[in-house]
Amino acid sequence: MASVEIVSIGTELLLGQILDTNSTYISQKLAEIGVDVFFKSSVGDNETRIENCIRQAFERADIIIVTGGLGPTVDDVTKNAVVKVLGKRLFLNEKILEKIKNNFKHRGVSMPESNVSQAMIPHGAIIIDNELGTAPGLLINHNSKIIILLPGVPREMKAMIENNVLPYIKKHYHSDKSEIIKSKVLKVFGMGESMVDAKILDIFKSSSNPSIALLADTTEVKIRLTAKAKDEIFALKLIAPLEKDIRNRLRDSIFAVDDETMEYVVAKLLLQSKLTISVAESHTGGFISHKLTNIPDSSKYFKRGIIAYSDESKVELLKVSPEAIRLFGAVSKQVADAMADGVRRIANTDIGLAVTGIAGPSGEREGKPVGLVYIAMAWKDSSICDEYKLKGDRILIKEQTAQLALDVLRRYLLKMQNVK
Amino acid sequence: MASVEIVSIGTELLLGQILDTNSTYISQKLAEIGVDVFFKSSVGDNETRIENCIRQAFERADIIIVTGGLGPTVDDVTKNAVVKVLGKRLFLNEKILEKIKNNFKHRGVSMPESNVSQAMIPHGAIIIDNELGTAPGLLINHNSKIIILLPGVPREMKAMIENNVLPYIKKHYHSDKSEIIKSKVLKVFGMGESMVDAKILDIFKSSSNPSIALLADTTEVKIRLTAKAKDEIFALKLIAPLEKDIRNRLRDSIFAVDDETMEYVVAKLLLQSKLTISVAESHTGGFISHKLTNIPDSSKYFKRGIIAYSDESKVELLKVSPEAIRLFGAVSKQVADAMADGVRRIANTDIGLAVTGIAGPSGEREGKPVGLVYIAMAWKDSSICDEYKLKGDRILIKEQTAQLALDVLRRYLLKMQNVK
Repeated sequence: MASVEIVSIGTELLLGQILDTNSTYISQKLAEIGVDVFFKSSVGDNETRIENCIRQAFERADIIIVTGGLGPTVDDVTKNAVVKVLGKRLFLNEKILEKIKNNFKHRGVSMPESNVSQAMIPHGAIIIDNELGTAPGLLINHNSKIIILLPGVPREMKAMIENNVLPYIKKHYHSDKSEIIKSKVLKVFGMGESMVDAKILDIFKSSSNPSIALLADTTEVKIRLTAKAKDEIFALKLIAPLEKDIRNRLRDSIFAVDDETMEYVVAKLLLQSKLTISVAESHTGGFISHKLTNIPDSSKYFKRGIIAYSDESKVELLKVSPEAIRLFGAVSKQVADAMADGVRRIANTDIGLAVTGIAGPSGEREGKPVGLVYIAMAWKDSSICDEYKLKGDRILIKEQTAQLALDVLRRYLLKMQNVK
Repeated sequence: MASVEIVSIGTELLLGQILDTNSTYISQKLAEIGVDVFFKSSVGDNETRIENCIRQAFERADIIIVTGGLGPTVDDVTKNAVVKVLGKRLFLNEKILEKIKNNFKHRGVSMPESNVSQAMIPHGAIIIDNELGTAPGLLINHNSKIIILLPGVPREMKAMIENNVLPYIKKHYHSDKSEIIKSKVLKVFGMGESMVDAKILDIFKSSSNPSIALLADTTEVKIRLTAKAKDEIFALKLIAPLEKDIRNRLRDSIFAVDDETMEYVVAKLLLQSKLTISVAESHTGGFISHKLTNIPDSSKYFKRGIIAYSDESKVELLKVSPEAIRLFGAVSKQVADAMADGVRRIANTDIGLAVTGIAGPSGEREGKPVGLVYIAMAWKDSSICDEYKLKGDRILIKEQTAQLALDVLRRYLLKMQNVK
């Protein structure tokens, strides 16, 4: 199978003014039809450097997909650079010029002179119509390799990829031996990257298809299983036994699959169990309730949230005893317990979830450092409360607390489901 | 001045599974100190291809910044590839190993064997401490060029760029002839992109340094002014008159500058005015309170948040009259007003802010479509309430409501400040 190099052109990419979403999109689409991208390059609007970049790409790839630099300004030099590499010249194509002129006429303006450059193309190039803009795409054969030039405007580029480039590559490079790439992501909470690695190291090492990759995020670890196979069904068949093996080892620590979020999983469990919940938050300031209410139909399980930031509000709104706050402090197991129990009683829900902690940067006290967090959960018969010592800035401590609290809830709901 | 090539490593980049935000961030930071990035490359977790990429980078750049592939797994082969190019070998660094072990100890677990690889470094490398993770960064001199290896985890990479890489490059590569690029972003709320465009079109067309770019986000429009000059002071002098002109036309619609968020601006105004606030939320589910408590010292102005999702909770917690809900519905001007007034009285704060609305996808009623939102604000003498008809999915409606509510608060606080 052919290999591809993607070249993104534009000084704004090198200044960090825009994210290169184009090459990410093209990579995804190529992966789906089983085409390998081995390199991506970005280069500014500089003819010599573009030329060098393209020359280099011809050395290491079979198909080169170039985006950007096809506009009408003096900055747009992609075609000039490419024809130098190919040893060709640009000629005016009357048909394309006519199309561009019509495009402007349609908008009620006459074509600026500078747009003539968009109708200049090398002999032998296959023209890719641009339904959404003025610059046509070009596909050029060269020494049994191909180079494809596309505009940098995402929607114009995407339409050409879908309608022209992918069908062309499938037709000319697809063989019975071609394989697609299919990924499945298992999301792990409550275990670090190296811990996950240690638990599945032997699978990791022994498996090449599917291949396994670990990605650590701020609050989770993703295990990505990527299979190559002749179609999606076969790919999923390759993934299944590996997934089973990994699930046997990591158990409940795997909380979600692919794009599922923690709150989505918790919401699903709450809806299935028909249990209701209320939340009392201190340092997370409403973030847990926000997450729980991001899911459609959340009013079926979420009833009330109390953000009790001050001591008085904990006493008045949640019926925490002033003595508990005086004796143990607002950030304590005793107060967390009382908050969870209080909110559950007041809201009359099955579950009460509460957090109290110090998000920083100020608020540190003797024996109570920034990052000290208590998470409590109360239900009819009983309650639990755990202490955590978290690291990071204010936002990160809020985020970690919210995920931890939702995970406590998730594990409880799973257990209830298994008891039944 | 030196030129930089950024190399991003990770197969997930070539499969289009993640966006390369790291290289965009690094590009931005380098542009700010006037360092040119001429090329970016991305390559997968393949030792030979990484080696080729790095070799190539050494041919065309003075400084090579590599991110990713420093993790503890067998996939992480960046260092192996780099030392091949440099003709060096990796040795165990006991000090780093000790640090990594302590990092795990602190979390109450012992270090997995695989993490030893993160303590392997070549002789002569300058070690960049990783305060937020286990893999140290490395800076290596080679034939009067330098190569810098950084972890791919964004927050770890960012800290190293800020604290170590930028100071190093400034110190060793800055010359008198260097031109720096300085951008300033004016953030606009409450006006669409084409409205902003129409208001500043003539400035837009006549200015080349600073250049002007418009970027539309979900809830705001950014106006980016980018100046080239010999230093930051000169660049800011170029930007100042243009900024003044734009501010004269857009007035209070410009709510923030650069990376400032709406909640940051509101928090600053609240702290300056020494006013306190409480929040009653329905469909935003705690999102407004979450934003208001993201800012350090928020306990000085934020006292209580009530998430009254159900009708009963509006009555019980906020003293909204059941008649108002029955007559006008929970999503109505009357109930929004009562919520704002209720939360202000109960929390005994200067300001009460309340929102009620239909975030969808369900919950639509006769005359009350998804996206119908009321935002009310009550203070001692008076109150205001506005109706909005928002578009978008559930999350977007929550986001827009939160920004609108904070903007109502911002404009009120600005007016109070000007009255004084």
